[in-house]
Formats: sequence, C-alpha cells, structure tokens
Amino acid sequence: MSYYALNYSMRKKYEELLKLYKESLIVEEIAMLLYWDKDVTMPSGGLKQRAEQMAFIAELEHKKKINPRKGELLQQILEHPDYENLSDLEKRNVFLIQREYNKLVKVPPDFVGEFQKYCVLATEAWEKAKEKSDFTIFLPKLEKMIEYNKKYAQFLNPDADPYEVLLDYFESGMTIEKCDQIFNPLKKASIPLIEKCLSSTTKLDMSILNRSCPLDIQKKVNFDVLELIEFDLERGRLDEYVHPFTTGNYDDVRITTQYFEKDILSALLSIMHEGGHGSYEQNVGKNSHYQPVGMYCSEGMHEGIARFYENFIGRSPEFWKSYLKRFKELTENIFADVSLDNLVLAVNNVEHSAVRTEADELTYNLHIILRYELERDLLNGKIEAKNLPQIWNRKTKELIGYEVKNDAEGVLQDIHWSCELMGYFPNYTLGNIFGAQLYAKFKKDTPNWQKELERGNLNIIIDWLKENVLEKGNLFDPFELVKEVTEEEVSSKYLIDYHKEKFSKIYDLN
Amino acid sequence: MSYYALNYSMRKKYEELLKLYKESLIVEEIAMLLYWDKDVTMPSGGLKQRAEQMAFIAELEHKKKINPRKGELLQQILEHPDYENLSDLEKRNVFLIQREYNKLVKVPPDFVGEFQKYCVLATEAWEKAKEKSDFTIFLPKLEKMIEYNKKYAQFLNPDADPYEVLLDYFESGMTIEKCDQIFNPLKKASIPLIEKCLSSTTKLDMSILNRSCPLDIQKKVNFDVLELIEFDLERGRLDEYVHPFTTGNYDDVRITTQYFEKDILSALLSIMHEGGHGSYEQNVGKNSHYQPVGMYCSEGMHEGIARFYENFIGRSPEFWKSYLKRFKELTENIFADVSLDNLVLAVNNVEHSAVRTEADELTYNLHIILRYELERDLLNGKIEAKNLPQIWNRKTKELIGYEVKNDAEGVLQDIHWSCELMGYFPNYTLGNIFGAQLYAKFKKDTPNWQKELERGNLNIIIDWLKENVLEKGNLFDPFELVKEVTEEEVSSKYLIDYHKEKFSKIYDLN
Repeated sequence: MSYYALNYSMRKKYEELLKLYKESLIVEEIAMLLYWDKDVTMPSGGLKQRAEQMAFIAELEHKKKINPRKGELLQQILEHPDYENLSDLEKRNVFLIQREYNKLVKVPPDFVGEFQKYCVLATEAWEKAKEKSDFTIFLPKLEKMIEYNKKYAQFLNPDADPYEVLLDYFESGMTIEKCDQIFNPLKKASIPLIEKCLSSTTKLDMSILNRSCPLDIQKKVNFDVLELIEFDLERGRLDEYVHPFTTGNYDDVRITTQYFEKDILSALLSIMHEGGHGSYEQNVGKNSHYQPVGMYCSEGMHEGIARFYENFIGRSPEFWKSYLKRFKELTENIFADVSLDNLVLAVNNVEHSAVRTEADELTYNLHIILRYELERDLLNGKIEAKNLPQIWNRKTKELIGYEVKNDAEGVLQDIHWSCELMGYFPNYTLGNIFGAQLYAKFKKDTPNWQKELERGNLNIIIDWLKENVLEKGNLFDPFELVKEVTEEEVSSKYLIDYHKEKFSKIYDLN
Repeated sequence: MSYYALNYSMRKKYEELLKLYKESLIVEEIAMLLYWDKDVTMPSGGLKQRAEQMAFIAELEHKKKINPRKGELLQQILEHPDYENLSDLEKRNVFLIQREYNKLVKVPPDFVGEFQKYCVLATEAWEKAKEKSDFTIFLPKLEKMIEYNKKYAQFLNPDADPYEVLLDYFESGMTIEKCDQIFNPLKKASIPLIEKCLSSTTKLDMSILNRSCPLDIQKKVNFDVLELIEFDLERGRLDEYVHPFTTGNYDDVRITTQYFEKDILSALLSIMHEGGHGSYEQNVGKNSHYQPVGMYCSEGMHEGIARFYENFIGRSPEFWKSYLKRFKELTENIFADVSLDNLVLAVNNVEHSAVRTEADELTYNLHIILRYELERDLLNGKIEAKNLPQIWNRKTKELIGYEVKNDAEGVLQDIHWSCELMGYFPNYTLGNIFGAQLYAKFKKDTPNWQKELERGNLNIIIDWLKENVLEKGNLFDPFELVKEVTEEEVSSKYLIDYHKEKFSKIYDLN
C-alpha cells in the first residue's frame, strides 16, 4: 500500500468522523430550539407533548454522540500509521471527539431520555414552587433529581465520588480539592473586604435609581447595549423570560432577560451577562464551525466571558464614564440627576443580599461557594434534600450575612437543580477567576486601555477577547487556554487583587 | 401454542408497531416547530443553519416512517392467525401504517433530505422574487423544484403520470379523471354565476370597510373570533406571517395571519380559515392521540374544514347578523355606519380578482382550477416554467376575467410551489366540495340551524363538526367519511346548489 493510499484512507476516516460530529451538533441545535421555545413561545398546554419531544431528541443526541461507528473510526484513526501526519488542529478534533465519546458511551441512551423527560416536569414544579414560595412543591422532584444526578455520575465512573465526577464532567480536570484550593482563598479574602465596604462611610443613594422606568424604555437601553457589545441581532434575538438564559450557536443565538419596572440596572447587567454568552457563541471558532475545535472551550470559560462582559465592562467606572450620558438620553432623563459616582456605586453596591443573580461582584462568589458546598453534601449524602431550606438559610446567614425571608428568595431562587446536572454552579466563580486573569493580561497588553474605555471604545476590549479567547474556540482546555494567553497558571490571586483595588477605590477604604 | 399465547404475541407486535408510529409523529412535530420558528421567530441569519436542521429532521422522519422493523411487524401482524381478532379501529391503524409505509419506502431518505434542504432555499428565492415582483429570481429554483417533484413521483410509481401520482399522494384515490369529473361541472356553473353577480344592480360600497383600522384593534377582533370558534389559546398561539399558515397538533397548534391596515375583513376571514385548520388539529381523534386514526383524515378534508369555518361560517349572513354589533364595538365604532347587507356583500364580493387567498367563494375555485391545470401541464411537460408568467396571465384573463398587473400578484402569489409538492392545490376546492356536502347535512340534521346561528350560537355548528368530522380523525378515507356522514357519494352538486342559492339571494338574481 502506497503512502498516498494510506493518506487517502486516513483523510476519508477523519472526514467521516467529522461528519458524524456535525450530525450530533445539528441534533443539539434542535434540542436548544425545543428548549428555547418551551420557555419563550410555547403555549402552556404543550408541555407534555414537548417533554416527549425533548426526551426523544436528548436520547437521539446521546445516541449520535456514542454512535458505535465513531468508536470504530476513532480506533482506526488513532492506530493509523498516518495519524502523526494530521495537523495539530485535526489532532485536537480527534482528541475532543474521543474524550466526549469515552465519557458518554458509559451512559445508556434510554436513561438520558428518561432524565430529560423528568427535567421538564421538575422545572414545571420548580416554577410553581417558586411562584408560591413553597419548597414542599419542589421537594419530591428535587429528591428524584438528586437520584438522577447520582446515577448519571455512577454511569460515568462508579468508583469515584459522584460530585467529583460531575465537576469533571463540566470542567475537565476539576476536582473537589482543586475547587477548595481556588475557592478558599477567595472566600477568606472576600468576607472581610465585604465587611469593610459595608462599614465604609461612602453611602449609596438608590432612591434615584429605583425610580420607575417603563419597560419599553428599558428595552431600548438593552438593545443599545447589545449593539455596543456587538451582539449581532441579524444572527440572534432577545426575548423575555423569568430566568434569563442564552441558547443557540453560530448564526442563531438567542438571549432572554427579565425586566423590573423599578430596577433598570438589573436588566441592564443581565443583558451584559447574557450578551456575553451570546457574543461568545456568535464569534466562537471562526472558520471551524461544526468541528469540535469550533465550539466553546468549557462551561467555566463560557461563564467567564459572560461575567467578563457583566463585571469588567458593565460594572466598571470606565464604561459608565462614557455611557452615562447616553443612558440618561435613552431613559428620557428619568435618571437625569444621577451622578457618575452614585451610578458606579449602584452597580457595585456591596450588600448582604438574597439573590445570586442580583448580587454584587464580591458577594456573588459567596453565593456560589454556598451552592457548591450544598451540592457536594447533597450528593454524598451528608445532608438531606428535605432539610435544605433550613440549611440554606443558616449558611446564607453565616457566609453572606443575610436573613432569608422565604423559600422563593432562598433555596428556590435558581432553576439549575431542576434542569441541569449538579456540579455546574462552581463554573460561575471559576469563570470569574479566568476572567480576572484575562482582564489583567488585557490591561498589560493595552497600555491605553483606561483612556480608550473611558471614551467609549469598547472595541478595544471586545477585539482582544475575540482574538484571545472567543475565536480560539476549543483549541485548548480552559486552564491551558488561560495559561496560553496570560503565560501563567490559573490562580485566584488576580480576582482577589482586582476586588481589592476596585472596591477600595469605590468605597474609599484604607 | 395456546390461544392466549398467540394473542399475547399479537398484542406485543401491535403495540410495538404503534410505538414506532408515535416516534415518527414526534419527529414530525419537531419538524413542524423548526418550520414555524423559521417563519415566525428565527433571526434571518440563521437560515443556512436551519436548512441543515430541517434537512436532517426530514430525513430522520422519513427513516422513521420506513423503519424496516415496521415492515417486519406489518407482515407478521397481517399474516398472524389472530389478525381477525383486532378491533376495527386497530385494523384501521395497521392499514394506515401499511399504506404510508408502502408509499414512502420507495423514496430514498437522502433524496428526502436533499429535497427538504432545497425547499428552504427555494422559499427564500420565492420571497425575494415576490418582494421584487420578479419571476426570474424564482425561475431557476422553480425549474429545479419541478424536477424534484417529478423525481419524487417517479420514486412512488415510475410507470404512472407524475402529476397523477402526486394527486394520489395527497388524497388517496384521486386521479386526473376524478378531478376533471368534479371540477368541470363546478367551472361550468361558476363562470355564468359570476357574470350574473357582476351585472347585478346590487352594488357594494367598500368605502366604509376600507377605512383604516389600527392593527392592535384588528388583533383584538381576531382573538375574539378565535374564542368564538373555540380555538384554545392555552393549547395554541397566533402570530403574524406574510403567508398565513397553521402548524402543530393536539396541544400545541400554531396559527399565523397577516394584517392590512385598510382591509380588516382580510385578516378576519384569514383567521377563520387558519382557526378552522387549528380547531381540526386541537380536536382531532380524541382518545387516540399518537395513533394513525388520531390524525386528520386527509389534506382535502383539512382544507375543507378550514374553508368551512371561513365560508360557511365567516361569510354567512347568519353569522354576521349576530356578530356585527360586537364587531362594531370591538373596532371602536370605526365601522359604526356599515349596514348588515353591505357587510355581507363585502365578504361575498364577487369580482375578477388577482389573488386566490382574497378571492370570493365563487371565483376562488377558478383560481384553484387554474393552478391545477398549470401544475398538471408543468409536470407532464406540456408547458415550460419559463413561460409560466405569460400563460398564468392569459389563463387568469380567460378563466377569471382579470388582467394581471405584475408577477407578485400573479404567478408569484402563492408559496406552495417553493415549499411543497405539486398536486396540493386541488385539495382546496375538493375541500369546498366536501364542506358543502357536510354543510347541507348539518342543516338537515339541525332544523333550527338558521335561528341558532343568527343568535350567535356557533356551538351548534362546531359541536356538529367535532362529532361528525374532527373527532373521527382518520377512521375513514375522505370520500368514505363524507359518505358515512351524509349517506351519499361525494358530488359537486351541493357546492353548486349552495353557491346558486346564496349568491342569488345576496345579489338579488333570478
């Protein structure tokens, strides 16, 4: 057999493998649409029908991902004498398909369908429970969800701690130990810093910002912000949903948000966050769509980008220095008398708060660490679901200093445990850590960053993100990507330093 | 082997067959959502991605429908000694699955996917062409679509006339001969009746009805009408699209319509039509969902029901006698001075018109017969696509007496040839014929029908339709269903008589 013949057979196999990958991604796109439509456009009566459709597609997606032909091709490619002649990008594609295949081949497809079907019912129960602020409505579903999570973890690795298995599922290489290593210093630094901010003499006047602002004006502001951060509305859309989320990919990316008449900043920061997710998807892996390297890097990195837009842009004094004038114009001068200092303070209003999604940057990570510790203990049986409200409230008091008033603002505030695997929450704080390290590098790379941002040139930071993160897709694992870009190992020190510097300035500490 | 063991094995096979059927219907539901979303909610940039998703699902749906396991089960069931012990309903289920299977097994799945992908592009070209009123934009796509139609027909039956194959595809048992038998008397009766109406001294004053009416008021009226005809908005929704359509089934049925500021009656009649389609789907085959008998009877019957709501209700003097007052209230008295006679005349305004969907009841069927003759000749090569605009315009003049001004209102007015198989159009008129025969029977069954309808009791007709048609699902083929309900063979005489009686009265003929 000649060299060329060999090479040709390798090429064929590689192309077939990528074709199979593309097929499973198309099924995933369809799954995303079913999900989006369920929340945004579906008539309520359609839920039972939709649950069956989603279960069918989840099972199909799973089947496609573990297509036995993939297994054959992977083996043939990896053992092929020409394997070494593949480019690095091609090798990465093969590696990523293999990693996913090896992971998922352990989970039976009918279990995936059953789990998916149950998620729809659990989400419905969660919605009702939250509406009535009654945890007991959700409890039986949650208990079952915990069982499903454990079972899922057991399929993946029957010998390991189930929570650790799920951590690794979302973020390759993550362990409980690694979480503790990264989270503990952050927790240690955040708690006293929060106390300092709270006892500072610098005080926020929220009376202006809590003025009523009609939703159509808020929508106008949100669409303006989306344009600023270059979210392309020809290739995406914005709708309303009670629990903001982003879904879709490439040329069809869909964001949702929630408006509150008396809290314009809530929707604005939420749109920055979801817009960040959305921009990631619209710019990811340019030129390698429908290949594994043309996908986002990891869940943590996705959250990192979203929180980068929300915090490092949306909560920065630099952004508001340039945007405040336009903000006042767009809101028809409802907020004409708000000062820059007061606005910056408002978006960085440190407080003992109930709700994660509305928390300030500092407290936010404590909300995550709380969930991390609860998930971990729920899965290893140290605590029971039925006791969750009490434990939730006690730990909120201890960690965040907030006295929870009811289950709706407490243990029922997040949708996650009703529709996703547990082990996802840590990615939010991991994302903050990735983000801070990337942000520090951006500043180092861009000496005039402050001046540029202050004059409203957001391109300077968005282009940097595109080039260094978004367009790289999944060429690197997240910890490697951060190292590749910043030339340092991932550490929480950048986030801790950033917090200290930013909040000391805003709250006039020392 | 004992009787019970045999019976058990039969039961198992039957249940497996129905499970496979249900699976293909779930895939069809997903296909319908992809289609609806493309037209109603998808950002424009997503089209290429969506085309791939739709092609994938169309291919999957086809694969599911011709799953070889179905073939095996069908054979085993039909040859099983216990086959005769199945109930009539069960036998009908087996028969319907077999008929579909035998039909579709002849079409290769990759052809279906390729065709589906092309349809998306053809629809896009049609939209552009219609917008610019330029047939040449659509022509190359149409030529290819004709090839696809011929190929499709050839797969189904290589020896028969392709158009005849497609007619039978949509309406089992339909032939060119049968069409001619039904359409020719109708054509013969309609043309002189139209001329009589046009030369009548009874004249319509459209100046009032063409008053500008804000779209939000029109929407209010449309939602009111949907409630009247018992379209359930908990299990359905209404949106806008340039070419009104209905999609979905059972508990998730979606209607679209188009509003014109200066033509409130257009949207109102369109919502009656689509609402009729929607009600069919919401009420179809009660207690037998996800079984073949729990589906609509045929394409022609679906159109028949839609046009039943639109014409026999929405264009009836009886309906307007009760609804006019409410109509005036809802439209905030914009139409306060319109008389009942003038309104009835407006919804029955016979004219030499360009556009099928806005045509009066009489002329409508001539629009269909025109399309029928063109489709037939396009597929058997008697005419060429490139000559279509001229032929269209000439025939419109001959049959309908209208001088077509441009391609947008002429050959490009309908979406069908860009996204469906040819051979569908005749179903509209067939539906009118079914409807008229059913309507006559309803009147016979309900001596006080006129009084009840005049006092706004629409239930009397809707309940009759539910019981006699909608809830029967697909227990009978369409011609048999009409015969079962009306105790007579299908004939165009009821439609012809209805036309004569109604228009003689409205236009004061004799």
